[in-house]
Amino acid sequence: MQLGLVGLGRMGFNMRERLRAAGHEVVGYDRNADVSDVASIADLAAALQGERVVWIMVPHGDPTRETVEELAAALSAGDLVIEGGNSKFTDDQEHAARLAENGIRYVDVGVSGGVWGATNGYGLMAGGDTADVERAMPIFDALRPEGPREEGFAHAGPVGAGHYAKMVHNGIEYGLMQAYAEGFELLAASDVVTDVPATIKAWSRGTVVRSWLLDLLVRALDEDPELQELRGWVSDSGEGRWTVEESINNAVPTPVITSALFARFASRQEDSPAMKAVAALRNQFGGHSVQKSDS
Amino acid sequence: MQLGLVGLGRMGFNMRERLRAAGHEVVGYDRNADVSDVASIADLAAALQGERVVWIMVPHGDPTRETVEELAAALSAGDLVIEGGNSKFTDDQEHAARLAENGIRYVDVGVSGGVWGATNGYGLMAGGDTADVERAMPIFDALRPEGPREEGFAHAGPVGAGHYAKMVHNGIEYGLMQAYAEGFELLAASDVVTDVPATIKAWSRGTVVRSWLLDLLVRALDEDPELQELRGWVSDSGEGRWTVEESINNAVPTPVITSALFARFASRQEDSPAMKAVAALRNQFGGHSVQKSDS
Amino acid sequence: MQLGLVGLGRMGFNMRERLRAAGHEVVGYDRNADVSDVASIADLAAALQGERVVWIMVPHGDPTRETVEELAAALSAGDLVIEGGNSKFTDDQEHAARLAENGIRYVDVGVSGGVWGATNGYGLMAGGDTADVERAMPIFDALRPEGPREEGFAHAGPVGAGHYAKMVHNGIEYGLMQAYAEGFELLAASDVVTDVPATIKAWSRGTVVRSWLLDLLVRALDEDPELQELRGWVSDSGEGRWTVEESINNAVPTPVITSALFARFASRQEDSPAMKAVAALRNQFGGHSVQKSDS
Amino acid sequence: MQLGLVGLGRMGFNMRERLRAAGHEVVGYDRNADVSDVASIADLAAALQGERVVWIMVPHGDPTRETVEELAAALSAGDLVIEGGNSKFTDDQEHAARLAENGIRYVDVGVSGGVWGATNGYGLMAGGDTADVERAMPIFDALRPEGPREEGFAHAGPVGAGHYAKMVHNGIEYGLMQAYAEGFELLAASDVVTDVPATIKAWSRGTVVRSWLLDLLVRALDEDPELQELRGWVSDSGEGRWTVEESINNAVPTPVITSALFARFASRQEDSPAMKAVAALRNQFGGHSVQKSDS
Repeated sequence: MQLGLVGLGRMGFNMRERLRAAGHEVVGYDRNADVSDVASIADLAAALQGERVVWIMVPHGDPTRETVEELAAALSAGDLVIEGGNSKFTDDQEHAARLAENGIRYVDVGVSGGVWGATNGYGLMAGGDTADVERAMPIFDALRPEGPREEGFAHAGPVGAGHYAKMVHNGIEYGLMQAYAEGFELLAASDVVTDVPATIKAWSRGTVVRSWLLDLLVRALDEDPELQELRGWVSDSGEGRWTVEESINNAVPTPVITSALFARFASRQEDSPAMKAVAALRNQFGGHSVQKSDS
Repeated sequence: MQLGLVGLGRMGFNMRERLRAAGHEVVGYDRNADVSDVASIADLAAALQGERVVWIMVPHGDPTRETVEELAAALSAGDLVIEGGNSKFTDDQEHAARLAENGIRYVDVGVSGGVWGATNGYGLMAGGDTADVERAMPIFDALRPEGPREEGFAHAGPVGAGHYAKMVHNGIEYGLMQAYAEGFELLAASDVVTDVPATIKAWSRGTVVRSWLLDLLVRALDEDPELQELRGWVSDSGEGRWTVEESINNAVPTPVITSALFARFASRQEDSPAMKAVAALRNQFGGHSVQKSDS
Repeated sequence: MQLGLVGLGRMGFNMRERLRAAGHEVVGYDRNADVSDVASIADLAAALQGERVVWIMVPHGDPTRETVEELAAALSAGDLVIEGGNSKFTDDQEHAARLAENGIRYVDVGVSGGVWGATNGYGLMAGGDTADVERAMPIFDALRPEGPREEGFAHAGPVGAGHYAKMVHNGIEYGLMQAYAEGFELLAASDVVTDVPATIKAWSRGTVVRSWLLDLLVRALDEDPELQELRGWVSDSGEGRWTVEESINNAVPTPVITSALFARFASRQEDSPAMKAVAALRNQFGGHSVQKSDS
Repeated sequence: MQLGLVGLGRMGFNMRERLRAAGHEVVGYDRNADVSDVASIADLAAALQGERVVWIMVPHGDPTRETVEELAAALSAGDLVIEGGNSKFTDDQEHAARLAENGIRYVDVGVSGGVWGATNGYGLMAGGDTADVERAMPIFDALRPEGPREEGFAHAGPVGAGHYAKMVHNGIEYGLMQAYAEGFELLAASDVVTDVPATIKAWSRGTVVRSWLLDLLVRALDEDPELQELRGWVSDSGEGRWTVEESINNAVPTPVITSALFARFASRQEDSPAMKAVAALRNQFGGHSVQKSDS
């Protein structure tokens, strides 16, 4: 089928390739003219026939909001917008309402798989009305991995449910990564296991902890067995924070996901103000030795 | 090759099957005569020719210690004992030393895979001298999953390293399970995603969180979509505790693994004494409403 | 000086007493006519002379918002409203802006001390312009504990800072209470210390952990040495959640405060869905025994 | 009464002063001749009349073990040894058993108060037989703070209970300090409260969070309002680790105390191996930007 695709960055570019390989006709637009098929969103709208389907794949927040606004102007009643970026689920309500003013339908989709999705396919979680989700199914089928549809795609619920599912997926991901990371650090810190990379590689098959993330850790250790070339500095991109906020809103204890998020926060601190306060307290009550700042 | 196998419970029984299917000659001994091939450990020793290799697969602690003691008596210098149960790595030193008094060699092996190992093969982590590990390699090759040896087997280090690696493996496992579990609870508690089992099933392919544990969660939700038939009561079998103790001994922060362990402790409490104390404090300072015990 | 006081619940009622005992003229209004001095907020406004100062002490959220609305109508330019309830700091901006439309000034005050404040005095944290804070200082001086002003009162910053300070104060409070509670549980669970209440009471003087909260725990244990009459069920009233949200907004790791909040969430669950999921996973991979739900 | 005192470091020296000020006759021994009253433990034993009481106040572990050994030789049946250092409670069993071989009695005492104890008195928790504890009561009364005995002293239980109580006390202390520290960091990180030291000082009276530790934090901030002169590097001295180990042994969830311990571990790491692993994973799956090590 025909698809308009706004945003041809790392993810969008790969998705266009995968969709075209599956026989779909994709008209892509990006501000970067080098990769764009058309000169503007208006041109993109003009290039699509009949009831149009346009997929948004730009950074969440303002860029997505502005794209929704442009599409509200360029598209017509009955057209369908699919938001496949990392929007917060609460944004989806606003996007859908804005487009509904012009009779335009809306589906949000959480997309997982990273740079590997281009070849492996992407895990997809969709939110929206059933008819709208069904309409885009040929696209979803082309993007998701091979195998049974239900193992790589879900209609998770109404508008917002796709990004909510992706948010929780990412929260879990934080926890999984931290679990492996703690195990790696303990193996490396103790001197009992003498071949840490080989030990972790041996978990690839048969064990309870085998996973795709483990495979990636094995790859990383193949390249750099002690991870000497990296700093322990880790960014976070929103979904982890939102997951914790939602766990608070729903009074759900999420100590593992939250610990993983806090570990990222701490990884980015040059020095910890909290631990300065603890050092100050110990100094006050016990005359315990403290380390003075260099400054 | 020939192998003596002490302990034919759920794990040992399956391993005998898998080893025999691979063409090895296994003489099994168990206190339960219904499954045992011989009447005693002495008989087992007598049934093996040349330099003997005997695998122990009984519960850790006293049963393993007693078996080591019996094997020290029944075996001869040059024989090899492989401890494949869930011993604490510190026990391995003692086992090896006891057997060394009689010139008997010792290798410890961490075995992962649960009931699925019978068909999938088991992930194996071995500790001991290289010559001893090599000697048992035909057995390891039969037990581990198909594929490259290094993806299902590692010689992790000297005596104790196999169980140390398995201990850390299990600590990671605690963290992974808790991460999925928190995500499941949040999805179930919020009302945004309306089809939780389908959403989790859609993570099976292509996503960052795909794993064998996820596949098992999908299976569990296929059988009981809201997990209504289970209580949130979870045992722990030692390795999680040892992992945290070792993280303390090595001053390694392991908030995720520890949170997962504490969640299990809490799951087994009828009521929390700590939270009684918090309730008592709130009652004291603020006249906040408290819930009285039924008793 | 003269003060209007809206809200004569547990806190407001006590504050009126304390202010009158200090020689101030307080006109109190409450929907409950039994405790109210006047019949309406309009009457309260009419009963005050010159530039009026009115203190709000009603539940946060809608009740406070409605009271601000009523005061916007009843008061005049130059009057001052002090919000002493547990409003979220972001609400203060809205209250101040609404009142500023009518030229009315606004100060927010965080108030700590619970039911004991009536006799001990209340710890106070104020947010607003310096001139406004100074104007209300006689009231603050009467409410705060005896001793140097700076040990029971702070001008924390602009509008919102008073409630922000109180929010963080309460987040810390969550952590402190949980720390004592965990220690209590460990003492009670192990059998080494045979007289737990006496041990905790001995921490009242001289030790590093002595505090007012400890004194309250001692009182609670004097009344009920094993806290048998309470359930481990603990509510939360907002500030703890907001503290964690703010820690996330500012990328500040707050594992202790967050753990204390999550322990409250868990205390209110009949059964843990997350631990059901962990039990389900263990059952799937290891055939581990699970506890079936009664239902 | 007469007391032998072995160990005249910071704590022991101050205690000798306080005991002498209370009228007791103290014979102190230290390896440092400058502060010692006698030349050896043998001389100390010789300088005491009748049934002797000797207090040990040296570092825990080997120094305490060696002192116990020397006292076993120097003292006689019926004499009493009081171990007032920071021994692990399990050591007390060994010390008591060793001394009992020679008929010497043993009491362990947890001592809290730091450098301030010299003037304020020390909080004391004793473990041992009632008759032995009673015999040393004049010493305990002189060391503990003024006020009712039960507010600064407890007979916590049999041998080991004193140090167990002190261990839990210190675990709680870790949690309390971390709670204040997290609140401090959040106040400092957000820009809502503009006068952080004044705000914290205002918690000194009337508030729920007032405590001696808060008073010390106020002192520290008086001296250095942004704690600029300190590094966020915090040591740990054993009791926190033992508390977590004991919480694991007793299946008691202690997330707050454990989080505080882990924060100390993390504070001493130049870089986090775990976070390197997380960075490596993100790099693998998403091509996320990582920070390269300088090395």
